[in-house]
Amino acid sequence: MKKNKILVIHGPNLHLLGAREPDIYGKATLRDIDKELKAKAKKNDFTIEIIQSNSESEILEKITNTAYDFLIINPAAYTHTSVAIRDALLGVDKPAIEVHLSNIYKREDFRKKSLISDVVLGVISGLGKGSYLLALDAARDFLNKKS
Amino acid sequence: MKKNKILVIHGPNLHLLGAREPDIYGKATLRDIDKELKAKAKKNDFTIEIIQSNSESEILEKITNTAYDFLIINPAAYTHTSVAIRDALLGVDKPAIEVHLSNIYKREDFRKKSLISDVVLGVISGLGKGSYLLALDAARDFLNKKS
Amino acid sequence: MKKNKILVIHGPNLHLLGAREPDIYGKATLRDIDKELKAKAKKNDFTIEIIQSNSESEILEKITNTAYDFLIINPAAYTHTSVAIRDALLGVDKPAIEVHLSNIYKREDFRKKSLISDVVLGVISGLGKGSYLLALDAARDFLNKKS
Amino acid sequence: MKKNKILVIHGPNLHLLGAREPDIYGKATLRDIDKELKAKAKKNDFTIEIIQSNSESEILEKITNTAYDFLIINPAAYTHTSVAIRDALLGVDKPAIEVHLSNIYKREDFRKKSLISDVVLGVISGLGKGSYLLALDAARDFLNKKS
Amino acid sequence: MKKNKILVIHGPNLHLLGAREPDIYGKATLRDIDKELKAKAKKNDFTIEIIQSNSESEILEKITNTAYDFLIINPAAYTHTSVAIRDALLGVDKPAIEVHLSNIYKREDFRKKSLISDVVLGVISGLGKGSYLLALDAARDFLNKKS
Amino acid sequence: MKKNKILVIHGPNLHLLGAREPDIYGKATLRDIDKELKAKAKKNDFTIEIIQSNSESEILEKITNTAYDFLIINPAAYTHTSVAIRDALLGVDKPAIEVHLSNIYKREDFRKKSLISDVVLGVISGLGKGSYLLALDAARDFLNKKS
Amino acid sequence: MKKNKILVIHGPNLHLLGAREPDIYGKATLRDIDKELKAKAKKNDFTIEIIQSNSESEILEKITNTAYDFLIINPAAYTHTSVAIRDALLGVDKPAIEVHLSNIYKREDFRKKSLISDVVLGVISGLGKGSYLLALDAARDFLNKKS
Amino acid sequence: MKKNKILVIHGPNLHLLGAREPDIYGKATLRDIDKELKAKAKKNDFTIEIIQSNSESEILEKITNTAYDFLIINPAAYTHTSVAIRDALLGVDKPAIEVHLSNIYKREDFRKKSLISDVVLGVISGLGKGSYLLALDAARDFLNKKS
Amino acid sequence: MKKNKILVIHGPNLHLLGAREPDIYGKATLRDIDKELKAKAKKNDFTIEIIQSNSESEILEKITNTAYDFLIINPAAYTHTSVAIRDALLGVDKPAIEVHLSNIYKREDFRKKSLISDVVLGVISGLGKGSYLLALDAARDFLNKKS
Amino acid sequence: MKKNKILVIHGPNLHLLGAREPDIYGKATLRDIDKELKAKAKKNDFTIEIIQSNSESEILEKITNTAYDFLIINPAAYTHTSVAIRDALLGVDKPAIEVHLSNIYKREDFRKKSLISDVVLGVISGLGKGSYLLALDAARDFLNKKS
Amino acid sequence: MKKNKILVIHGPNLHLLGAREPDIYGKATLRDIDKELKAKAKKNDFTIEIIQSNSESEILEKITNTAYDFLIINPAAYTHTSVAIRDALLGVDKPAIEVHLSNIYKREDFRKKSLISDVVLGVISGLGKGSYLLALDAARDFLNKKS
Amino acid sequence: MKKNKILVIHGPNLHLLGAREPDIYGKATLRDIDKELKAKAKKNDFTIEIIQSNSESEILEKITNTAYDFLIINPAAYTHTSVAIRDALLGVDKPAIEVHLSNIYKREDFRKKSLISDVVLGVISGLGKGSYLLALDAARDFLNKKS
Repeated sequence: MKKNKILVIHGPNLHLLGAREPDIYGKATLRDIDKELKAKAKKNDFTIEIIQSNSESEILEKITNTAYDFLIINPAAYTHTSVAIRDALLGVDKPAIEVHLSNIYKREDFRKKSLISDVVLGVISGLGKGSYLLALDAARDFLNKKS
Repeated sequence: MKKNKILVIHGPNLHLLGAREPDIYGKATLRDIDKELKAKAKKNDFTIEIIQSNSESEILEKITNTAYDFLIINPAAYTHTSVAIRDALLGVDKPAIEVHLSNIYKREDFRKKSLISDVVLGVISGLGKGSYLLALDAARDFLNKKS
Repeated sequence: MKKNKILVIHGPNLHLLGAREPDIYGKATLRDIDKELKAKAKKNDFTIEIIQSNSESEILEKITNTAYDFLIINPAAYTHTSVAIRDALLGVDKPAIEVHLSNIYKREDFRKKSLISDVVLGVISGLGKGSYLLALDAARDFLNKKS
Repeated sequence: MKKNKILVIHGPNLHLLGAREPDIYGKATLRDIDKELKAKAKKNDFTIEIIQSNSESEILEKITNTAYDFLIINPAAYTHTSVAIRDALLGVDKPAIEVHLSNIYKREDFRKKSLISDVVLGVISGLGKGSYLLALDAARDFLNKKS
Repeated sequence: MKKNKILVIHGPNLHLLGAREPDIYGKATLRDIDKELKAKAKKNDFTIEIIQSNSESEILEKITNTAYDFLIINPAAYTHTSVAIRDALLGVDKPAIEVHLSNIYKREDFRKKSLISDVVLGVISGLGKGSYLLALDAARDFLNKKS
Repeated sequence: MKKNKILVIHGPNLHLLGAREPDIYGKATLRDIDKELKAKAKKNDFTIEIIQSNSESEILEKITNTAYDFLIINPAAYTHTSVAIRDALLGVDKPAIEVHLSNIYKREDFRKKSLISDVVLGVISGLGKGSYLLALDAARDFLNKKS
Repeated sequence: MKKNKILVIHGPNLHLLGAREPDIYGKATLRDIDKELKAKAKKNDFTIEIIQSNSESEILEKITNTAYDFLIINPAAYTHTSVAIRDALLGVDKPAIEVHLSNIYKREDFRKKSLISDVVLGVISGLGKGSYLLALDAARDFLNKKS
Repeated sequence: MKKNKILVIHGPNLHLLGAREPDIYGKATLRDIDKELKAKAKKNDFTIEIIQSNSESEILEKITNTAYDFLIINPAAYTHTSVAIRDALLGVDKPAIEVHLSNIYKREDFRKKSLISDVVLGVISGLGKGSYLLALDAARDFLNKKS
Repeated sequence: MKKNKILVIHGPNLHLLGAREPDIYGKATLRDIDKELKAKAKKNDFTIEIIQSNSESEILEKITNTAYDFLIINPAAYTHTSVAIRDALLGVDKPAIEVHLSNIYKREDFRKKSLISDVVLGVISGLGKGSYLLALDAARDFLNKKS
Repeated sequence: MKKNKILVIHGPNLHLLGAREPDIYGKATLRDIDKELKAKAKKNDFTIEIIQSNSESEILEKITNTAYDFLIINPAAYTHTSVAIRDALLGVDKPAIEVHLSNIYKREDFRKKSLISDVVLGVISGLGKGSYLLALDAARDFLNKKS
Repeated sequence: MKKNKILVIHGPNLHLLGAREPDIYGKATLRDIDKELKAKAKKNDFTIEIIQSNSESEILEKITNTAYDFLIINPAAYTHTSVAIRDALLGVDKPAIEVHLSNIYKREDFRKKSLISDVVLGVISGLGKGSYLLALDAARDFLNKKS
Repeated sequence: MKKNKILVIHGPNLHLLGAREPDIYGKATLRDIDKELKAKAKKNDFTIEIIQSNSESEILEKITNTAYDFLIINPAAYTHTSVAIRDALLGVDKPAIEVHLSNIYKREDFRKKSLISDVVLGVISGLGKGSYLLALDAARDFLNKKS
């Protein structure tokens, strides 16, 4: 049987993680998070692909190239500005979870409006790298139930 | 060593679960969810207390009676109207996660504003009973890191 | 054949009726209104239960305990603030009419927004005790048509 | 003794009733409603005049020609746009009730604002033809009390 | 001559005082404040009753049970959300002063809108326990002038 | 030399003048005002035509039939709702003054927004019949200056 | 086989075309446009009826008298104010296209909100008489596809 | 018999008249306007005092020193910002007319909100120096009627 | 030991007190209030300086000339418009209390927004001259605690 | 004579056409549309270049590289978010038409605001592939008139 | 040849500089800044006049007395409230630059709206005394280009 | 000693400079500006790198690749839409100045909101190429003070 494939997308500026505003985002680097995600994916018998991109169009390409079974996306700044990512998610209609490292509700007002949240299954925010790892658990539960 | 105690609060109308708007909230009853929560708590070596209440003041009493280590709260309707629950959370300053069964961003506009989200660690919404179970995992990770 | 049961809920502060702001609410007391409601219910061969409560949670319990066939509710102050009552009405999905003694459109701006109106059959407001009595007629017509 | 005269005004597009959006407005035609209104008026010993008009100015003429004792008006689309009808009602200062067949609170946002509601005695909405018939009862009660 | 009776109501979460956010609310406990209020009431030859309640309906009962001459109320979180308390104050029409320990204008935006302020005599905010004590002086002046 | 012709348009419900809300609009009837306008026009050697209409389209016809030199218009209720009258005024590009009997700034909020004011020469409001008579003086000054 | 009939409605003030604000609306008169519409209709083997009306109620009568197969409507000023025309379009449920001579998005803010656009098939604006002529092409394509 | 005294206040920057933005304000200087006002006052047997001031407090002093019978005020920039002038007008309760040289409705949005209009008898705007001269006529009519 | 000095500033139009809108502001004149303030200051062994000014800049000079220990300020109309007074208070960082004679929450909407409240210790409003006198008590308590 | 060149830009996610939300966008693929566009261009003796791009910057490059005579652009998601595309259109000042396959007025609120519409000649929306084809006709008419 | 004259206006509360909120405004006093401005003016062969004023009317007098060639103005608090200063700038139509010591975009929301910015050449903010000094350079470049 | 390096970023569409809307942006091309920037940098002994990019992600790469000492950025259209650029600036925490050629406050409303201004040192706008050149001076002053 073919393994389920999880696509993880880290949005713009997340390559700065660890260095960038550590009081908000923590000290773990993106590499640290990816390592844990890969380990957990392996344990769950998933294939996993992880990308970081600062480019809205690159993210669109990844989302609309539908060679995956479940999407975990941290749209970062694009959460609040990208109708295009919203449209891509609507267009491919794949199960997806939006994650945020920080609690976006504690920050600037404009970060409280997400253009993404109402077109995904659910949202996990504020739990640091845990946001990603729990999303992976949710993906497992979702895909098990379906199969 | 004393076990960590998790307090789970189900807010107003959640006693209707299973019967109430099943296309939004699913068919699982509150009893089903509580059973899974207790099983998982046991596995994690937690003490767990679960209450459902329609009364804002009863919920306040529970929150401000601080005999617990971590709070998982689904404030339901009070998410959008209760400054008092917000104040109680600010007052006791305990680690807490806000959960929602449904994706509140897909519903009426007034459900998009939470008075709670910016005074808790994080939010998990839209994943059905999974929202609660993942919150229990997050509690475990949080309490492990602390101890 | 079992008689249809009407539940009438008078919301917060309606126990003050007669004394409270008589230029807005009239001089009839709640007891006067209830007497007329009971008489009319009897004539229509209805069972009727009438409660007044200042407590949001008590009102929730009454609404979600579904032992009635039609609900007439004057949510009073909770009209404008209670998402929980709205959710209870959505949850039980019983036929209901929202009534108001005074014309709420002639008063403070915040009284013009009802959280209840779009989840009930209809609204009758501004006709004093007549608002309740006409609602009882509407209940009779609704239940006759259904049976 | 002279009989009381009731004026009933059906606003724009109500001539389409029965054909127009039956899931919102029901299958009864305007003729059906008028027949029931006339029967009930007769029983209450009222004179009744019923008009339907798509013309704002025609409605103004009818309202400001004050040869009636009570007005029942379904302003339909003009509910939300006609300051002129509001002014006419203020100008003649006759007892009046605003009625709506559908529950206007369940529809487009702009239908939630009425320019009429705060210058009439009260509002009855969402009860189909019942909205008109109950208004006739309210007229009877109002005129009896006065005489 | 019968002594004047002052009713003091402490709203939700005020039982946490001293422990709760001391940088905003100070270190004095509610017991400390009550002791000073009682002493001052005694000096002014007042009867005083002081309650703290987390329950909106309990507060309504207290306000609408009119066995008092002057009300000092710190509605706390309910300041911003309770139309019911506003209605109770309008209903009983007793002289009342709204007090706040903290300067509510220095805090979250939603704390700037009070549903209570325009139905009481006046407001005292930001002076810690002084807010209550000055209100007691104002009560004395008001009742003296009246008698 | 051909006399200048003044067109005076009284908008909807102004036929009620004298009877309608005399505390706002005064006791003079429209006939009284028209008499004074005609007398003054005669003195100024103007031809004058005065109409009152409740019909938006009739008013449009009058405005766009350009057989006049100066327009004095009291758009009444249409001040706040008629883009069509605005467009007619823009379309014919004749000198015009908007007048109001009452001070529209002392009334409901929606009366403060005029769709007409920025496409006429000027506005005179709140001076009763004086608003019209002064507009006639202004017309005289305008036409004298031009000729 | 019966020819398809197209109804074209020119809204208020369009009779001024050519004279009215030529920098916005161009120099073609309504007669010029109608001539081209008739020629093109003939070529497409359509029956065509064209009216211009300043009267909202007259436009309502035309729309709700359903003896046509496709509607091309330039609601002009009523685009922004007429809930009644919207309701008529909803009521008859005929295929329709909204057209505008000028680019309404380049003008006053209130012209950017159309009450009509979301109840028609589509909108063509800013292309002068071309807006009408292209709408006629779209009508042909729509009716061909259907038949 | 004592002559009536008219006070005319020209607000800030009106000393620039003639030089300042002549396409909006015309070429007449303040001196020109004052000369005509004095001539007309003389003809009407009024005493007149005219001041121009750039100082809000100086204007307050003039208004609240109540040695006049009628006030004509062009508050200029203070129209939109001075609650203090509004309060002064409320405080002295003298008959007053607000005038503007330009049509303030044709200009920036913030010029459309006047803090003054609802506390004066009426407003005349857009008629250049005519705005002042007509106000003087209105003063004459008002004072004649009163005496 | 040097006595503490209290500066009391009465803002614009307060010189009208007693005459001005007595139903809102009471019949006491400013002189009456000042007399009581001086008496109470004397009893508390304070130096007191009291000024009334209609001039924003004069008030700024007084506030920023820091020869006082505590400020009691009734900014009157400037409460709602003066960023400059706010900046002055921020600039000198002296303990201050904002007072209002009337309950500003019962009046026009624009009076509900204060630019001052969040940069002072606290606010006392609605208690007539009592607002000032209680502020003097609060000043005493504040200065005692500090010394 | 050189042929006129038409540039057609399909914005983000339009490559999904046919698969993506077929109830909104129809079943035709982008390839289908392009084929018809090319055929029609050929018939009209136009050169045509068609691109689809998910990249805002790629679209900017195409627009600002001015080797074309007329632009037909479906900005898709960028309609509502791209000031940069607006600026590019302003910068090159080429004749352009904005097209939309779906009726954007029937969808989410944020889709009703276009940043593009007021900087193009006109807009055609809601007519499926017809929107593009009619735009090509409009291009022909525009270029013919010019040449 | 006559030297160019620069007028520098420091608005309200800037006399507190150095003492006032040093974390926002820095430790330099106004005297320090003026010294540098004078030195630089001398080097550029400018005449310079520098004033600080807390009085809006004094600032108006300075601006409208047009004996200068270039204006550098830090309107401080009046930036956000003074339509009068805006009008004065419009009235004299002199080249001017608005400067701010602090970055006003990092502060309270109401500081983000300037009534001045769109009537000056440009704005320099957030660069401390550098804001003034760079403005002097810009003045030099502007005046050189002109001459 | 290593020279300080200045990074200058020209945002989208600035490559059109000179051709694009010359009445707003002037006739200088980007090449002209860059030449002056390089000359001035040389004089100040700075290394300078200048890029123009239409791509948001390319700009993000440049900003987050931190091999520079000071950033001068004209975000052009991205000023108003790019949370990602804001986040990049927050992430790297380098000294930066936002510049604009035109006075953005004189243009469309949406250009008045900058997502960048509150995360940079300061803003210079409206001074044409001078905006850039003065920013270079500010960079020099900033870096001198630091070293």
